[in-house]
Amino acid sequence: MFREIKYNEDLDIVLDQIRKGAFLTVKSGDKLNTMTIGWATFGIIWNKPILMVLVRKSRHTHEIIENASDFTVSVPVNKDLKKALSFCGSYSGRDIDKIKEAKLTTKKAVSVDTPIIKECNYHYECKILFKLHMNEENLHEDIVKSSYPIGDYHTLYFGQILKSYKTD
Amino acid sequence: MFREIKYNEDLDIVLDQIRKGAFLTVKSGDKLNTMTIGWATFGIIWNKPILMVLVRKSRHTHEIIENASDFTVSVPVNKDLKKALSFCGSYSGRDIDKIKEAKLTTKKAVSVDTPIIKECNYHYECKILFKLHMNEENLHEDIVKSSYPIGDYHTLYFGQILKSYKTD
Repeated sequence: MFREIKYNEDLDIVLDQIRKGAFLTVKSGDKLNTMTIGWATFGIIWNKPILMVLVRKSRHTHEIIENASDFTVSVPVNKDLKKALSFCGSYSGRDIDKIKEAKLTTKKAVSVDTPIIKECNYHYECKILFKLHMNEENLHEDIVKSSYPIGDYHTLYFGQILKSYKTD
Repeated sequence: MFREIKYNEDLDIVLDQIRKGAFLTVKSGDKLNTMTIGWATFGIIWNKPILMVLVRKSRHTHEIIENASDFTVSVPVNKDLKKALSFCGSYSGRDIDKIKEAKLTTKKAVSVDTPIIKECNYHYECKILFKLHMNEENLHEDIVKSSYPIGDYHTLYFGQILKSYKTD
């Protein structure tokens, strides 16, 4: 089953799952990686549907997405992928082929170069329109303490959702 | 009727309405203003529910929110507020008392200093955790052309949703 959905459809369950874990997949040239994310935002900016994700500068994913023009987010709603989510949140793609080791498979995307994670059922294909390197400037001190005790700030990637769909 | 809702509840209809227009209200000291917004994003960042809004630096609202620690977003789903939305998107609070002239009324918020717009039925009370002054750096050229032909870049305000609720 493949069904296109609106960017804002089922966001209650999609955001609940992202909070528990989803996959951010990036590709640049022959470099491919996926990482577990727990944060993301959906909405409208510049009259376009936007999915924003965050990647710390220390991450292998960061090296790849910095040279990419798109990314995908694959969300496993009611799928038993806890082990794969935990694995992809614990190991670095610098050292191993994470996708293979986590027993995940990729599938060609519809509209972007980066593939999706086949084992998930909600998919968002995004073209990067804007990115921002965070630092402690204008950031609440509570957040500096809780999320950036050793620095290692995020880069925020604002992606236009070109395609969003559900699969089995 | 007052019913608390989750930050991610009814986002399909809320985002559809924001696209058509909603009210961003700001307050600093005795300065109060509301403006019509058509863009916003919802999600999870820093393990917190976040509503992000954008305000151009030329706006009266910008002068006020720059000195504020919170804001509210009031969304009129299936309410006939087209005239008020159009009015608050066309006039500046520098020149007139927009809220009064638009025949809107404010109501004390539950958790923040800024009031809500009583005529709306979805309300989000937000504490500002992070703000970012945009410029053309790392922004796609298509967006520079379409949204910033004369510059006047937005500041992005990331607000923690302290309370979200529906009213009649």
